Amino acid sequence: MTRVAIVGVGHSKFGDRRDVSLPELGFEASKPALLDANITPEDVEFLSVGIAGTWYEDFLPAVVVSEYLGLAGKGLMRCEAACATGSAAVATAYNMVKTGQCDVTMALGIEKMMGVDGPTMTEVIGRAGYYLWEFHNFGMTFPGYYALHATQHMKKYGTTEEQLAKVAVKNHKYGAMNPTAHFQRPITVDDALSSRVVAWPLKLYDCCPVSDGAAAVILASEEKAKTLTDSPVWVESIGISSDTASVSRRSDFLGLRATVKAAEKAFKMANVKPDMFDVADVHDCFTIAEILAYEDLGFCEKGKGGQLVEDGQTEIGGKIPVNVDGGLKAKGHPLGATGTSMIVGLTHQLRKEAGKSQAPIKNGLALAHNVGGTGHYCYVTILRS
Amino acid sequence: MTRVAIVGVGHSKFGDRRDVSLPELGFEASKPALLDANITPEDVEFLSVGIAGTWYEDFLPAVVVSEYLGLAGKGLMRCEAACATGSAAVATAYNMVKTGQCDVTMALGIEKMMGVDGPTMTEVIGRAGYYLWEFHNFGMTFPGYYALHATQHMKKYGTTEEQLAKVAVKNHKYGAMNPTAHFQRPITVDDALSSRVVAWPLKLYDCCPVSDGAAAVILASEEKAKTLTDSPVWVESIGISSDTASVSRRSDFLGLRATVKAAEKAFKMANVKPDMFDVADVHDCFTIAEILAYEDLGFCEKGKGGQLVEDGQTEIGGKIPVNVDGGLKAKGHPLGATGTSMIVGLTHQLRKEAGKSQAPIKNGLALAHNVGGTGHYCYVTILRS
Repeated sequence: MTRVAIVGVGHSKFGDRRDVSLPELGFEASKPALLDANITPEDVEFLSVGIAGTWYEDFLPAVVVSEYLGLAGKGLMRCEAACATGSAAVATAYNMVKTGQCDVTMALGIEKMMGVDGPTMTEVIGRAGYYLWEFHNFGMTFPGYYALHATQHMKKYGTTEEQLAKVAVKNHKYGAMNPTAHFQRPITVDDALSSRVVAWPLKLYDCCPVSDGAAAVILASEEKAKTLTDSPVWVESIGISSDTASVSRRSDFLGLRATVKAAEKAFKMANVKPDMFDVADVHDCFTIAEILAYEDLGFCEKGKGGQLVEDGQTEIGGKIPVNVDGGLKAKGHPLGATGTSMIVGLTHQLRKEAGKSQAPIKNGLALAHNVGGTGHYCYVTILRS
Repeated sequence: MTRVAIVGVGHSKFGDRRDVSLPELGFEASKPALLDANITPEDVEFLSVGIAGTWYEDFLPAVVVSEYLGLAGKGLMRCEAACATGSAAVATAYNMVKTGQCDVTMALGIEKMMGVDGPTMTEVIGRAGYYLWEFHNFGMTFPGYYALHATQHMKKYGTTEEQLAKVAVKNHKYGAMNPTAHFQRPITVDDALSSRVVAWPLKLYDCCPVSDGAAAVILASEEKAKTLTDSPVWVESIGISSDTASVSRRSDFLGLRATVKAAEKAFKMANVKPDMFDVADVHDCFTIAEILAYEDLGFCEKGKGGQLVEDGQTEIGGKIPVNVDGGLKAKGHPLGATGTSMIVGLTHQLRKEAGKSQAPIKNGLALAHNVGGTGHYCYVTILRS
């Protein structure tokens, strides 16, 4: 079976993008990806579109986007896995090449979330659990879910609010170096600790923003990749898992089982271990989520995640640089685009073209960890240069 | 690369299913599929869920369904391709086996459309084009789109209202033999011709109904399939195509380019020709759509589709029996379930267990043709016994 290479990546500015339509936003990612791969839409045989939102006026947003990108007539599928939707699009485009059905495919993750009519995004995303029981009966919101994780982790392992704040400070620092990030300003631990409480212990700076954005990844077979690029980045494996809709059916809030399972699968298929990675993007929708990810992915022992960030081990120069593109926290979290954005950032890292936020590349291995909901989905993608 | 076999299928009753919740409806399809494959949820490694609707209270309906089916923890993705959503789910589950990532996967297509709050289904589905231009400015509805096809086909090729009616009569005849079909009554040509006009020349009996339903397909690698069944049905190929969102950018209304392209791809990969099929399910959301499909798939020459049905060539005993499970027209069209339902019906045909509506099986070849929107998506799946 062919290996599958990333041969082109593109990324729109993330943020409040009410200045463009959904198709225009997609074009901001697809066009640079095509240029990066030195191909035209004619060469793309299949497009997977990652859109998680249900709030678009168009009933078929993927079709409208596809036409605008010049890809009408190609194979087409919309993929959804909540906040891991972009990774689902990558997995689909990867499979279409891996099976030999296509030589060149594109995964486009895209979302517009700002200024949407109807229920607020907080309400919509609050439903990303078991709606009828948890949202409707108990009024659970998304920050509320992650606050459960944070309080239990603090109680059991002594994780502190300062450690949570340090995740935010780190990710804002790198976001400020990333011109496509939603937030471009460094913050301090005091800024984070003194921001208003959203769901204790999570404060405003512990939460990722609502953003608009798009990111595109072009994949090719090994044979085709050789003709397109001298610096292919290989998709080594994609581990996929899920968990119960009801968080009441989870054993505890100390981690995400879906992450553990997805990582196990991905590590096994790629024959790698957690200490081999040069750089990683993890799903930091809330600061506590990044700490859980450190532990669930094996970057440190269970319960030591707070210490890992406090010690600076997840910054550039540390044991495993994490979210050095700003993460969801500072780069933004346009649901469908987040997974593809991770792959774009890590491709730049493995190609050593990440500029000021370049991590040292030794083994040529990177990991993208993308969670949907509160561990309802997890996709772990392993890349190798 | 492994071949991929269908080793189990299951189908709920289609119709007004306000008696069950979405997960319960999914269970009605997944449980018999598991029993048919003689496996348990433990054996299923990945679930693709085909849900096209954006109207569910749950923001993550696939997760809620997955938990109820006992599949929490497995790989999970929701797939959408408008009315071809079920086929997209099959393609995804197929790819997960074909790539060797899984030995056993399930594709579940499911939709609940009856009694939904908010805009009517006619409005929602009317948006399955280029909303901003065609729906919003011109008030195009879905029957209106297909009426454009019908009037142009009648003008150019002399296709008649009686021929359209004969598609409905045929599909209601076979629907009456299918206990899972929404409609269980045969109708006459007069019934069809005298029914009220929806969008001329399409009358009530030219239109498929709004339905609830679910259908499940279990796929396995060749090695695994050998341990599970003596009557595997092989997925030979899946051709996927698309077209412009705006129908104003189509060259004519005499056929669907997406069908032609998807069929070309599927035929080439499976190394088959249109005259080799024993039986087919085609996307008869309107009677004219079935006639277009005959021609676009190569079952007859362009313009001869009306004559083909008039001559009885698409009934059992004819050249190519089409929609002998009742089709969308009589079996119903729960958007996400339609594509998986086609695969379920054709699997029964190739296993020669279709009872009164069994077509003669000579070459052991069947074709499923599933269109999303008005040719915005097309998936053509070829099966072999």
